[in-house]
Amino acid sequence: MSVFEWPVRVYYEDTDAGGVVYYANYLRYLERARTEWLRHLGFEQDRLMRDVGIVFAVRRVEIDYLLPARFDDALTVEAAVETVGKVALTFRQAITRAPDSLLSRALVQVVCLDRSRFRPTAIPAEIREMMYAEQ
Amino acid sequence: MSVFEWPVRVYYEDTDAGGVVYYANYLRYLERARTEWLRHLGFEQDRLMRDVGIVFAVRRVEIDYLLPARFDDALTVEAAVETVGKVALTFRQAITRAPDSLLSRALVQVVCLDRSRFRPTAIPAEIREMMYAEQ
Amino acid sequence: MSVFEWPVRVYYEDTDAGGVVYYANYLRYLERARTEWLRHLGFEQDRLMRDVGIVFAVRRVEIDYLLPARFDDALTVEAAVETVGKVALTFRQAITRAPDSLLSRALVQVVCLDRSRFRPTAIPAEIREMMYAEQ
Amino acid sequence: MSVFEWPVRVYYEDTDAGGVVYYANYLRYLERARTEWLRHLGFEQDRLMRDVGIVFAVRRVEIDYLLPARFDDALTVEAAVETVGKVALTFRQAITRAPDSLLSRALVQVVCLDRSRFRPTAIPAEIREMMYAEQ
Repeated sequence: MSVFEWPVRVYYEDTDAGGVVYYANYLRYLERARTEWLRHLGFEQDRLMRDVGIVFAVRRVEIDYLLPARFDDALTVEAAVETVGKVALTFRQAITRAPDSLLSRALVQVVCLDRSRFRPTAIPAEIREMMYAEQ
Repeated sequence: MSVFEWPVRVYYEDTDAGGVVYYANYLRYLERARTEWLRHLGFEQDRLMRDVGIVFAVRRVEIDYLLPARFDDALTVEAAVETVGKVALTFRQAITRAPDSLLSRALVQVVCLDRSRFRPTAIPAEIREMMYAEQ
Repeated sequence: MSVFEWPVRVYYEDTDAGGVVYYANYLRYLERARTEWLRHLGFEQDRLMRDVGIVFAVRRVEIDYLLPARFDDALTVEAAVETVGKVALTFRQAITRAPDSLLSRALVQVVCLDRSRFRPTAIPAEIREMMYAEQ
Repeated sequence: MSVFEWPVRVYYEDTDAGGVVYYANYLRYLERARTEWLRHLGFEQDRLMRDVGIVFAVRRVEIDYLLPARFDDALTVEAAVETVGKVALTFRQAITRAPDSLLSRALVQVVCLDRSRFRPTAIPAEIREMMYAEQ
């Protein structure tokens, strides 16, 4: 399984009065890595929306918060495809801080939607093949 | 000048590691009051977008941060129309905390845009008349 | 099991370019309901932090996104305590839209932390008893 | 006047249902550039807070929204020090998109605060000298 990595810096905007990254913002970090992984495969989501008429929407998230991330931390967000189906795929993701802290791990199920009706539709074959190759 | 007031509660999501509301989030609060003011006039923005084909977009903000808002604070956000032009209007806004703290004041210029081309367009007469009446 | 309900209005700030509420923002809504539930039991989190020296931190979230929430929607967020342990409690939550749409359901595990060391600590007896009574 | 530049990619989290970057989020981008400029001068804000006991807080923002930023845009955020006083400094900032679009320009006044009392305090001499040199 190929693991894609994306660096994320923690800014003030991400933290809360507890002094740590607000729990919902981990989901932003996870999505940045998935977006950059798609871009790395050659797919820009704005073009997929406009030209192909599809969007990828999150259907389910399971996330564990193990250690807090703090202001100014330099984090690494991982994304690896676990399964690819006809209309959905599942990512195994993690957020780590060097040298060896695992801050969070997550399982994210994403479904391909027809942009106009917002209904599930088949992932285009070209994209699915690239995704398979990344598993 | 009629002043519209809208209550806002500060949640963790709004604060940052400095223990206070993050400066960009004051702009969220200001917009909630403008949205509710429009609703109070009888205009739902989703219907304006869909049926009339217009959106209101912010063109300029001047904001002063006088005192910090903190987690769990119960705030009041004020919105008053200062000027209404053909395509734009200006709000004078304030964020206060009882009994007598002025936390922030702002001047916000909003412009009416054609939804599809994202270009300035005239505020529909019916809406402009209601806005005038509120001045 | 007693179910606490809290109203949430969807503003522009909550939506994304897909025209629906951004997936991370559902976690904000869920937390607002948990915060208001604690307040309804008589506990203000800022006082718990300052006077008792504890904070409640999310340890795990499982969330299903069933239907999208849209700009201007009036939502109801539910929070019900499913289990209360010595240091942690689990909420069963849902986000609904009248008359009968279930948009999202979630299971959220929250742990009581010593504020200064950020380590798990026992939920104060007075609070735990109130929580039990709400189950 | 030396101009510091920082790249920012627009993600879904930044956009709203209008299809463009939500107006409050421009203030996040502006702050990222100021934070990275401070880091480039050799000052980490978490260390300034912990070791020196100061935080920089925004006192006033004037921002013009000229053109919308969209999902997937690769932006450049500029920060240049315009004036440095004893306790405050003013940044002239801009957000641009290649090849030649000016999306937003802003004037941001930042004040140095004593961390514990949240009151204005003198910018430490060492930092102020570095800031002068960057003008």
